[in-house]
Amino acid sequence: MTQKTTNLQVSTRGKGLYEFTQEAARWLASSGISIGLLTIFIQHTSASLTVQENADSDVIADLNDFFGRIAPEDNRLYRHTVEGPDDMPAHIRAALTATQLSVPVISGEMALGTWQGLYVFEHRDAPQRRRLVLHVFGE
Amino acid sequence: MTQKTTNLQVSTRGKGLYEFTQEAARWLASSGISIGLLTIFIQHTSASLTVQENADSDVIADLNDFFGRIAPEDNRLYRHTVEGPDDMPAHIRAALTATQLSVPVISGEMALGTWQGLYVFEHRDAPQRRRLVLHVFGE
Amino acid sequence: MTQKTTNLQVSTRGKGLYEFTQEAARWLASSGISIGLLTIFIQHTSASLTVQENADSDVIADLNDFFGRIAPEDNRLYRHTVEGPDDMPAHIRAALTATQLSVPVISGEMALGTWQGLYVFEHRDAPQRRRLVLHVFGE
Repeated sequence: MTQKTTNLQVSTRGKGLYEFTQEAARWLASSGISIGLLTIFIQHTSASLTVQENADSDVIADLNDFFGRIAPEDNRLYRHTVEGPDDMPAHIRAALTATQLSVPVISGEMALGTWQGLYVFEHRDAPQRRRLVLHVFGE
Repeated sequence: MTQKTTNLQVSTRGKGLYEFTQEAARWLASSGISIGLLTIFIQHTSASLTVQENADSDVIADLNDFFGRIAPEDNRLYRHTVEGPDDMPAHIRAALTATQLSVPVISGEMALGTWQGLYVFEHRDAPQRRRLVLHVFGE
Repeated sequence: MTQKTTNLQVSTRGKGLYEFTQEAARWLASSGISIGLLTIFIQHTSASLTVQENADSDVIADLNDFFGRIAPEDNRLYRHTVEGPDDMPAHIRAALTATQLSVPVISGEMALGTWQGLYVFEHRDAPQRRRLVLHVFGE
């Protein structure tokens, strides 16, 4: 068995989901691994990872709205306000979603369902460059 | 070290939790792996995975109710309504729980706590057959 | 490739976050593994894992408050009340966060972001000793 790691950067422009399925698939293909496990880890606490439906942009918008409702930008709710009204809600949204995802690799591809895509879930308003660490092992 | 993968299907009959601990344990036992890591991945965006207490059915019902309260079936809240009133809440519930779980394997068994069971968390009303991909490696 | 497992106990004194980044890092260093994947699994359904900012204690307090607001201790909301008013909210809080985390290992260290720390998220009021299972493999 062999293993490989890489870094991937995803540029974001405000709250919402940014797909990186293709970038991850390309790197996986270049690794030559046919059966194994791919792990994605995001090195941030105000952005996270999610697997969602990649067919309908309304799903993405509704998902973003939902998180705005349960973790509103209202400074009266929080002690931690010095980094802006979107910072503490961002930490909450990150805690409610995933920092890490592992996907089995079969026949050289991620074993995603038909409608599944991999997304960075950005929780801050200002543009960011988000760093992911990818690890794959197998044979 | 060796690795193995398989598929597991879990039939669901409406929103709620469906345990598959035994099915996963049986496959793990058949793999002959004594120490390693078992990963479970669900190939859907309207059902998810959770580890919960397998002792008390009230816990399961209360958990389901909670998710009904924070992501209600109310079309006025969502743009994405064409797949039925339970579809967008299903995506939200899936984002709040897990698409993937990894469990260390020790002495040929999953290292679960005394009260922990593995569940598919179904978020839709109609009967479904949910597909899981299992991957284990170790020795 | 080699693999190792261990157990780690984290003592908690009421709801909130308890960091164990250093304990995990020490064990990882002792394993001698330079590149690989570290997995942490918590053997409980009323405590969970989260990766959060380790710089500001206000973030930790606000995060705890948020979970108190969305899963309040109000027995009228729950069937499962025999284990105390904090038990069912604890199960909900655990379902919303992580039971397991995997972190890539690079140059003998967890590939955490600058501000990321690993925490046990305690959801019960009484003091507890929480058991984690750690698994690492690599070379």
